[in-house]
Amino acid sequence: MSDPRLLQTLDRLGADGLISADPGAVMLLTGHHADIETGPSVFALPALVVAARDGDPVLVASADDAQPSATCVTYEGFTVAPIARVANARRALAEAIGRCAGDRSAWAIDGASVPAGALPDLPGGRPVDDAVSSLTAIKTAEDLAAVATTIAVCDAGHAAAREAAPAGASELDVWQHVRHAMERRAGGRIPIMADCVAGPRAAQIGGPPSPVAIAPGEALLIDLVPRVAGMWGDSCATFVDGRPDSTLRRAHSTARAALEAGLAMLRPGTVSGDIDAAVRAVMAQEGFAYPHHTGHGVGFAWHEEPRIVPGATTVLQEGMVVALEPGVYGEDWGLRVEQVAVVTESGPQVLSGHELALERAPG
Amino acid sequence: MSDPRLLQTLDRLGADGLISADPGAVMLLTGHHADIETGPSVFALPALVVAARDGDPVLVASADDAQPSATCVTYEGFTVAPIARVANARRALAEAIGRCAGDRSAWAIDGASVPAGALPDLPGGRPVDDAVSSLTAIKTAEDLAAVATTIAVCDAGHAAAREAAPAGASELDVWQHVRHAMERRAGGRIPIMADCVAGPRAAQIGGPPSPVAIAPGEALLIDLVPRVAGMWGDSCATFVDGRPDSTLRRAHSTARAALEAGLAMLRPGTVSGDIDAAVRAVMAQEGFAYPHHTGHGVGFAWHEEPRIVPGATTVLQEGMVVALEPGVYGEDWGLRVEQVAVVTESGPQVLSGHELALERAPG
Repeated sequence: MSDPRLLQTLDRLGADGLISADPGAVMLLTGHHADIETGPSVFALPALVVAARDGDPVLVASADDAQPSATCVTYEGFTVAPIARVANARRALAEAIGRCAGDRSAWAIDGASVPAGALPDLPGGRPVDDAVSSLTAIKTAEDLAAVATTIAVCDAGHAAAREAAPAGASELDVWQHVRHAMERRAGGRIPIMADCVAGPRAAQIGGPPSPVAIAPGEALLIDLVPRVAGMWGDSCATFVDGRPDSTLRRAHSTARAALEAGLAMLRPGTVSGDIDAAVRAVMAQEGFAYPHHTGHGVGFAWHEEPRIVPGATTVLQEGMVVALEPGVYGEDWGLRVEQVAVVTESGPQVLSGHELALERAPG
Repeated sequence: MSDPRLLQTLDRLGADGLISADPGAVMLLTGHHADIETGPSVFALPALVVAARDGDPVLVASADDAQPSATCVTYEGFTVAPIARVANARRALAEAIGRCAGDRSAWAIDGASVPAGALPDLPGGRPVDDAVSSLTAIKTAEDLAAVATTIAVCDAGHAAAREAAPAGASELDVWQHVRHAMERRAGGRIPIMADCVAGPRAAQIGGPPSPVAIAPGEALLIDLVPRVAGMWGDSCATFVDGRPDSTLRRAHSTARAALEAGLAMLRPGTVSGDIDAAVRAVMAQEGFAYPHHTGHGVGFAWHEEPRIVPGATTVLQEGMVVALEPGVYGEDWGLRVEQVAVVTESGPQVLSGHELALERAPG
């Protein structure tokens, strides 16, 4: 029985099968998650998946990354011989297509991810611009457990940030404590996208940690986006060491109210653009606005459907995972709060457990 | 005046121009170095370069990553509107090709890196399997300064490892200190590929740091491969807290002698396969062997020409940067030593400054 998410995507594309090197699509269809922290490998092409309407999807990966099986074609990885990664991958992809093809011929080729040289001669193949955006939105129970694991890693990072960030520490010093706490929780190295910036640098919405020391009274904005065992999470908090000024307090309490308003709408049937509008309306009542999305799906990618943006028409369904993240950005400060929740029939199931308070050590 | 490395590559390919999304090729030809730590972006395709025989190479990148100019075509990056990254990149690439084309038509398309959907209709285009391997081997004076900066970051990591790794610390704890020291030296976050494993885990040649504690007498193997401002470095050391046993001492002194023998051969005119043979011969005299390469070029990629492998025929030239890394791997231990040097007419200029001694705190 094929994954209904695949069948729906193939219907949308008018195709019998999909070929993709998108890491989220590969993860969803095969469970394989490749290293992504150091860019492309000189020994291999990115892992590919070949998925037809029926039968199991077939993974195409180098022998460094996978074992050959009925559902995996491998080719040479690390070698001391001359490197032939493109020809090797192309042959392996042709074999995988042969295993899946039957008499079908309408293949949708994910044009964003499949390297041009990996493609064997494929008369029924057609590159498509938007192959996988609708594939990954809805999560299975197993997927949701994986997302929850990743969100727990986010939580560990936020707890470490509050411990490590008295005024005077540098953003980079705080970041290393945060990263260490997250990787200890995860049990090893993980990719982490992150904003970790204070004061005027947070006015730019985000950015990487710098060697600049956090000055007294500056708000530290920390947005943590780790990938654990192939599944992404997301979370943001902003806090101040000491007593925040009234501008920060008002902006922060408004952002929290806006976040709550958005979370309350995370039910099957809600139109995503309506959530965007409602959250922005709460902000606007206090004269605040933000230039970015209100939120997005997260899991197989760090930003996926349902996108919570102006005018979006995606209708929420049970099992979607949504990050909401209203913020306020002033002249020389910025703040944002973010939680992740699962859309369920009985309302939002908030996965994020990190502290959102504006004061570093509340209570 | 076009870069002679580009002209040589085009001659080899029999092409008038090159289209590539290889990060090393993009860096060499345009100076652009994209973030690579978190995999592909949902908002953009990888940066592309279009380089013809004459005129400046043109960068194609999202507006998040670059500014439009005579030598850069940008397209929309982050957006709250519907995402159209493939169509946008394809249009931008077509414009860049138009700027470079003149009346030429023989384009070599780097099949390993250019996404299938990014290609506009290009009658004279031809995907090639091995587009850029010969492009990046020889470094300019400016490139060499950048490599030296990266190697200094490696050195900082090794110094931190020796400070942070008494027996009893976990590999992951040591790793975080190492990473912090490297990122402080670099002034911010950097991608780092690394082996950080002790005892029996080092017998597997390498691997990521685990939560396992380093036991007394276990040798810790640390191989650090950071990218700083787009330029990769490499370096390895292995050390023990306390007095190493005689097997480790003999293996280590043999590996160091083999490394020295290889370094001494880094002169213009040497055939790379001869270096491989000579280094392995020193090891073999003591009954040792290793299953990996003897070394490799490094800089625009973490493994590039000249590859120092059996039978390799590449002839060393002034300005090549070579990492040499003989090792020994036993039943429940492993060790490796590695330094990076520049090939110059007056002999090897060793860039690596890290401690290689087998005892953690020598002297």
